[in-house]
Amino acid sequence: MIFWQHELQLAARPRGFHLITDEIDEALRSAPSASVGLLHILIKHTSASLTLNENADPAVRRDFERYFQSLAPDTDRNAPYEHTYEGPDDLPAHFKASLLGSHLTLPVTDGRLNIGTWQGVYLGEHRTRASGRRLVLTFQSH
Amino acid sequence: MIFWQHELQLAARPRGFHLITDEIDEALRSAPSASVGLLHILIKHTSASLTLNENADPAVRRDFERYFQSLAPDTDRNAPYEHTYEGPDDLPAHFKASLLGSHLTLPVTDGRLNIGTWQGVYLGEHRTRASGRRLVLTFQSH
Amino acid sequence: MIFWQHELQLAARPRGFHLITDEIDEALRSAPSASVGLLHILIKHTSASLTLNENADPAVRRDFERYFQSLAPDTDRNAPYEHTYEGPDDLPAHFKASLLGSHLTLPVTDGRLNIGTWQGVYLGEHRTRASGRRLVLTFQSH
Repeated sequence: MIFWQHELQLAARPRGFHLITDEIDEALRSAPSASVGLLHILIKHTSASLTLNENADPAVRRDFERYFQSLAPDTDRNAPYEHTYEGPDDLPAHFKASLLGSHLTLPVTDGRLNIGTWQGVYLGEHRTRASGRRLVLTFQSH
Repeated sequence: MIFWQHELQLAARPRGFHLITDEIDEALRSAPSASVGLLHILIKHTSASLTLNENADPAVRRDFERYFQSLAPDTDRNAPYEHTYEGPDDLPAHFKASLLGSHLTLPVTDGRLNIGTWQGVYLGEHRTRASGRRLVLTFQSH
Repeated sequence: MIFWQHELQLAARPRGFHLITDEIDEALRSAPSASVGLLHILIKHTSASLTLNENADPAVRRDFERYFQSLAPDTDRNAPYEHTYEGPDDLPAHFKASLLGSHLTLPVTDGRLNIGTWQGVYLGEHRTRASGRRLVLTFQSH
């Protein structure tokens, strides 16, 4: 039985949504090969997120940034919140992390991610100035 | 050890939220029986979603459609987005897919889904005209 | 191979977001020890949720309650919904359960949750008067 775990460091990226499927795929190539399995990915941060969405048109990722900025706007002095001392982008980053999610589980078939043709893994970077982000990948198979 | 995988084709459904617990249960009956396990379900699309919610009153599913239509309205010519050329329902369908999620992991006990009495599996169909949807089911057990 | 399952009863809590990492950690100590594994947690209810977020400042949890109350307000007689007969907090509780999610999968390394330094497990209690909540924990390892 295979139970492989790997920590993956992502380079710092600007605020917005970024396609990281290739980096996940490459890390998965280091795992033992298997006909059927599941890959679990956790992002170890509370101001960034992981989600699956459209992988073809970069405009969708820009529209995601616009939409989630409207759904959880940066806080100003009138915002009815307490935790505002880490900057206007911090608290909405926490909200977005929970709206979008911090982990993914993806099927693997014949050693490759078995996701839809149009699906890609998005990193949601919700801070205006962030360092790199750490992922924990856990791959299981029989 | 059991690592069973199965692709399930769902028939086309109208826009809205649909209870598909019975179809999941039936597919699970084809898996090897096990006292304890986990069932993972991925929907291989970026304009539909999977979530757990109330299984008894169909009005809740209609209210879900109303609520998510208000949270991510169909785009019109004034919408501040770029990816609008696939129709007014396309971009909000992507937003909803990420708000609601594309995959579920559910415990299985004595060969049956071990979810709450009032929990059911919802398919969120976010396109006005969609074809059927494909799921990948992966069942694991010892 | 380890496939351990445990039902955990949480005491009733007031409406809002509550850090339950310690209760999860303690339950995990009853599982067989393992160098690498995954812990799955399901909440068996449709008006409460599980999510990962900031574990240090209790103000973040209070801000979560404010934010999600604004995103899915309690219903009044003008609310455009059908399922309103269980009280003003019931239908938005269902919406929040699906926005935030009902299950988590977390990596375990050397017998401990391998999550970020600032990440904790939040219980979202979305009803004004709720009884305790039941979780199903499933721990897997090689």
